[in-house]
Amino acid sequence: MIFASDNWPGAHPLIAESILKASAGLHAPYGQSDYDCEVAGKLSRFFDREVEAFFVATGTAANSLALASCRRTGGVIFCHSEAHIIHHEGGAVEFQTGGAKLVPVASVPGQMGKIDPAALEQAIARFPSNDVHVGQKMALSLSQVTEAGTIYSLEEIAALAEIAHRHGLKVHMDGARFSNAVAALGCTPADMTWKAGIDLLSLGGTKNGCWCAEAVIVFDQANSIDLPHLRKRAGNLFSKSALVSSQFDAWLRDDLWLKLAHHANEMAARLVALVRASSTMRLAWETGSSQVFIIMPDDLAERLRAAGARFYDWDTPIGMEHLVQPGEKIRRFITSYATRPEDIVNFSMAL
Amino acid sequence: MIFASDNWPGAHPLIAESILKASAGLHAPYGQSDYDCEVAGKLSRFFDREVEAFFVATGTAANSLALASCRRTGGVIFCHSEAHIIHHEGGAVEFQTGGAKLVPVASVPGQMGKIDPAALEQAIARFPSNDVHVGQKMALSLSQVTEAGTIYSLEEIAALAEIAHRHGLKVHMDGARFSNAVAALGCTPADMTWKAGIDLLSLGGTKNGCWCAEAVIVFDQANSIDLPHLRKRAGNLFSKSALVSSQFDAWLRDDLWLKLAHHANEMAARLVALVRASSTMRLAWETGSSQVFIIMPDDLAERLRAAGARFYDWDTPIGMEHLVQPGEKIRRFITSYATRPEDIVNFSMAL
Amino acid sequence: MIFASDNWPGAHPLIAESILKASAGLHAPYGQSDYDCEVAGKLSRFFDREVEAFFVATGTAANSLALASCRRTGGVIFCHSEAHIIHHEGGAVEFQTGGAKLVPVASVPGQMGKIDPAALEQAIARFPSNDVHVGQKMALSLSQVTEAGTIYSLEEIAALAEIAHRHGLKVHMDGARFSNAVAALGCTPADMTWKAGIDLLSLGGTKNGCWCAEAVIVFDQANSIDLPHLRKRAGNLFSKSALVSSQFDAWLRDDLWLKLAHHANEMAARLVALVRASSTMRLAWETGSSQVFIIMPDDLAERLRAAGARFYDWDTPIGMEHLVQPGEKIRRFITSYATRPEDIVNFSMAL
Amino acid sequence: MIFASDNWPGAHPLIAESILKASAGLHAPYGQSDYDCEVAGKLSRFFDREVEAFFVATGTAANSLALASCRRTGGVIFCHSEAHIIHHEGGAVEFQTGGAKLVPVASVPGQMGKIDPAALEQAIARFPSNDVHVGQKMALSLSQVTEAGTIYSLEEIAALAEIAHRHGLKVHMDGARFSNAVAALGCTPADMTWKAGIDLLSLGGTKNGCWCAEAVIVFDQANSIDLPHLRKRAGNLFSKSALVSSQFDAWLRDDLWLKLAHHANEMAARLVALVRASSTMRLAWETGSSQVFIIMPDDLAERLRAAGARFYDWDTPIGMEHLVQPGEKIRRFITSYATRPEDIVNFSMAL
Repeated sequence: MIFASDNWPGAHPLIAESILKASAGLHAPYGQSDYDCEVAGKLSRFFDREVEAFFVATGTAANSLALASCRRTGGVIFCHSEAHIIHHEGGAVEFQTGGAKLVPVASVPGQMGKIDPAALEQAIARFPSNDVHVGQKMALSLSQVTEAGTIYSLEEIAALAEIAHRHGLKVHMDGARFSNAVAALGCTPADMTWKAGIDLLSLGGTKNGCWCAEAVIVFDQANSIDLPHLRKRAGNLFSKSALVSSQFDAWLRDDLWLKLAHHANEMAARLVALVRASSTMRLAWETGSSQVFIIMPDDLAERLRAAGARFYDWDTPIGMEHLVQPGEKIRRFITSYATRPEDIVNFSMAL
Repeated sequence: MIFASDNWPGAHPLIAESILKASAGLHAPYGQSDYDCEVAGKLSRFFDREVEAFFVATGTAANSLALASCRRTGGVIFCHSEAHIIHHEGGAVEFQTGGAKLVPVASVPGQMGKIDPAALEQAIARFPSNDVHVGQKMALSLSQVTEAGTIYSLEEIAALAEIAHRHGLKVHMDGARFSNAVAALGCTPADMTWKAGIDLLSLGGTKNGCWCAEAVIVFDQANSIDLPHLRKRAGNLFSKSALVSSQFDAWLRDDLWLKLAHHANEMAARLVALVRASSTMRLAWETGSSQVFIIMPDDLAERLRAAGARFYDWDTPIGMEHLVQPGEKIRRFITSYATRPEDIVNFSMAL
Repeated sequence: MIFASDNWPGAHPLIAESILKASAGLHAPYGQSDYDCEVAGKLSRFFDREVEAFFVATGTAANSLALASCRRTGGVIFCHSEAHIIHHEGGAVEFQTGGAKLVPVASVPGQMGKIDPAALEQAIARFPSNDVHVGQKMALSLSQVTEAGTIYSLEEIAALAEIAHRHGLKVHMDGARFSNAVAALGCTPADMTWKAGIDLLSLGGTKNGCWCAEAVIVFDQANSIDLPHLRKRAGNLFSKSALVSSQFDAWLRDDLWLKLAHHANEMAARLVALVRASSTMRLAWETGSSQVFIIMPDDLAERLRAAGARFYDWDTPIGMEHLVQPGEKIRRFITSYATRPEDIVNFSMAL
Repeated sequence: MIFASDNWPGAHPLIAESILKASAGLHAPYGQSDYDCEVAGKLSRFFDREVEAFFVATGTAANSLALASCRRTGGVIFCHSEAHIIHHEGGAVEFQTGGAKLVPVASVPGQMGKIDPAALEQAIARFPSNDVHVGQKMALSLSQVTEAGTIYSLEEIAALAEIAHRHGLKVHMDGARFSNAVAALGCTPADMTWKAGIDLLSLGGTKNGCWCAEAVIVFDQANSIDLPHLRKRAGNLFSKSALVSSQFDAWLRDDLWLKLAHHANEMAARLVALVRASSTMRLAWETGSSQVFIIMPDDLAERLRAAGARFYDWDTPIGMEHLVQPGEKIRRFITSYATRPEDIVNFSMAL
């Protein structure tokens, strides 16, 4: 009953097996192995477009290097006020970009986790071009799935991207849980990225079945020129790159990525159903993905933990205090490819 | 007959198997898995002292973060003029340290790859303390095995460390091929590090049997305070840290690391024997480790390559031009845990 | 009728004369001239405490270097949401600190420009110690006079500093208009700084009569160790430091700084009186210093400009939209040592 | 008898007077004053070409920002092994460029201070393009006058610039003593810069009569785009820019800069004549500019100092040890606009 995070499981058997198989061979290093070349082609087919892919060790690296590739002197990045890049990268984005400023943008009230287009316009307006005092605006970063577990519609992404492009900004998507969003929307990877205006993507495999497989995906080659150097400089260029490419190889084969994401989402949907059926818990807000935020009495949380469940208490977002009564708190549950139907059953029995 | 580099093989079977086994489990992330705790203890026993270990993705990360932990404003690092950190880290050390200057120090003529203590004293003397114009000297970095494949004696390391400490510098060892040096010297890891004055070590597993297992080892806890933050900021903190610790777990078990290093060194010794017996090739210089530098006629090199051998042409070091005749070049051969006795036999038959 | 900014006048005659006098001499460079030594002593008497002073070229340099001296890896600085350091330093603070994050903190509604202590506590609470994901909190920066022209009371400063110190933060004051605040409060420089908990001060002379005289003032010598190197690295160490110290020499003599600040404040008070007496204009909010924010109909603004007045239109702060009617805007007027009584008279006649 | 450095005198009377005159006015800030516009035009006439000029506080700022404007990720700069930017900027160049590596290049033996074209070719050859391991070469920086007081001929500059351009490098000239070189060569500012292949110039006024007047000069507008932001970010954008432009205004009027440089060079020539006539001293090497390097017995140096002379002992350059006997040392004498003929007479009488 591990609902703490989707970074707890090691790796899906098919991915672990792919690593094992690759381990026996000799491979040209630094991205020139057969696995690397093979996967490069697969990713272009995955995105229905020629893309450049830069494998890195972590989501932090993917996000910070993608944004570093957009950097300008005195650079300014707009993101959601609860974005992972502003609150949980330990300053990596600021550092790798040479000191960019991250400007928090609020969501529409009640639309947890999603950047409000009007607020974005307002925030951008404070950074006119060619004003050395305010610096140079350079990028918009949005997270899909968002930090609140919600999912932007394709139209919402396109609307934000349009605003950003109109002001000369590059658009980055933090796709740590990219697969879960595609699975939930029932669209293609292309639909959710370059067709909606995304320029750079942090594509996450680690939270969806891989051991360690993250990549910066660049949709327009002109944006990729500096990335090899940025990645090396950040200590993220694997000599034995086949370790990462052999994972993506299995992940992409026969749509494994999509099956795993559907499974995680389905496990979450069962959790949601239990919550809806319960008189003691209720959803803090709807998500639609593999993250479920539940308002739960403290004694129930204690009982679940005693029964072996692992999950996090969540700070009540500012402005939502009225939803939570004394003696209860919001708790975050995350499902993954490794969540088993019996975990949900056990959860329901421990209620 | 791959002698191009020791980063070509995937992973030793025992290490690949350890990853496979770990892949099936659920692990607390960010260095708190059972594997992580287990390996922390093993590393302290390995070094015969309580150490702090920070796993990272690459040797570039290990070197640049170890040195970043020593950083001072306007910082200055002394290293060999051919050091990997000055010529092959793509600026990672300069960047992660916030702009340190790497000052090249020459070797004693004929002592390839090793920093000359007198030249080090002279270089340090140009950076008096409390002089804002010259900046602040902060560290000495030496490579063991060196970039020329040579190996410092314990006394040589201690002599350089003494000079550095006398001037208030921290001493860092780039141990990308740490195991090969320990194997060659027949000493303990403790002898070659903290007992000889090393403060920080980049411990490399990747070139000796692992897929991807590098660590910054800190011998004095006071030096480790900033490293968790530096590592995160560099995008090098694995969520699924068990991927790395499960490799080190197998690497350390039953002295696998030492057996693999002895094997690589032994394969190199056989190559050296072939060279000595040959009338058409000769050693450029003695190394004693898994790297062999051979002066070889171009037609022989061509013949070997045609037979499937992979190895690099090497720039003739400045001052050694007289050793190389027209029509020949220095070629570097590297052996590894994966080099098979038949590779050496095939090499000898292709001569 | 230049009310655009207090950086328009060149220099007060006594300060210009001091530069002229110093220009004829030969001075030991880099802060070792007689002027430098003399001024160092004067500044310690000014602050009633032994201080370290680091002269720099600009307020941007003073702010960014003061904060850089507090830097930590993945560092976090708290400041007002409208602070100069977050909106008008062109990324200097982020850059000089090696990538610190500036976290905006709101004011108490209606208390323009002043950090709300409760909001500060809340903001700090999101950055627990020893959490690599959120980074390391390091400093609070407050502006006195604030960006809204308001002035913290000594008690308000002390309350914010107490919160900051309790959480291990250093406290920095952006004193671009330091003199105006001291003059308005009728306190001593010591009262408003170290006695109220300030650790580092950006002391501004440029906006109060000097050509170019800014300094980082450090109240506890332990905090000053890195500043000489930070300043050099930022290209802010003047060889001919007597240029700056000769200005401060005149500025400090016979309380010139205080007289000039009183004059500027008095001129502003006359403006305020005109506004209060007017039926077409009104104060946007009270300030008490040399900045006056006036809600003024557009046709009046046009008339004043036609008569030669220079002043800025000001964005209506978020949450204050209801105060401003269609056809009017907030306009900022700043007075300085160089504002003449006849400028006020001319203004009143142009109404 | 101050021969310690040309940064000891305050300012030439005409320049001090220009500051005084400007001090009485009101000026639009941040480079938009009448003085700024006037000087911009004068500088274009000075260089016989439309140029962009960025005033900064110090030579350190000029050098580091000029080079920062050329920066590339993992950047590499080539300079003389004794260049000011590699030995005396306190890490400013490394920092402002985001971590560039400075690669020292030797002089032709006997040609003190001047980069050897063959050695430059050799150094560049180690940094092939598109190799992430070595980083990206980006600029050549040369000093005119050199750190050894010598002066490149126009042909020598052009030859180095041709090599640099052929490899895609920008060419920067550190012109801290630009005027002295132009005066000595008898050429025009255009001849010694863009006509010889210089892309960016640090133009120094401070060592030649100004209080504080340095500028980055950009000859091709395309290279200047980032400089306004880099300067702001480095805390080097003066609000009261007329302080600097009023100095350059006087400096450029009636060729004051050239007269002052000729004077300094002439005073140095008189010193040289005294040395040549002496039996106890001799020139360490020829310079031709305002710096004179004299091999002098220690007792003579002591006698001169007792008589009030100020000058520096100089480290014997590596490879020149044979020139200096026990009991003597190289001493550096610098003349300036403020050196008086009687200083030379006094010197000669103290011998």
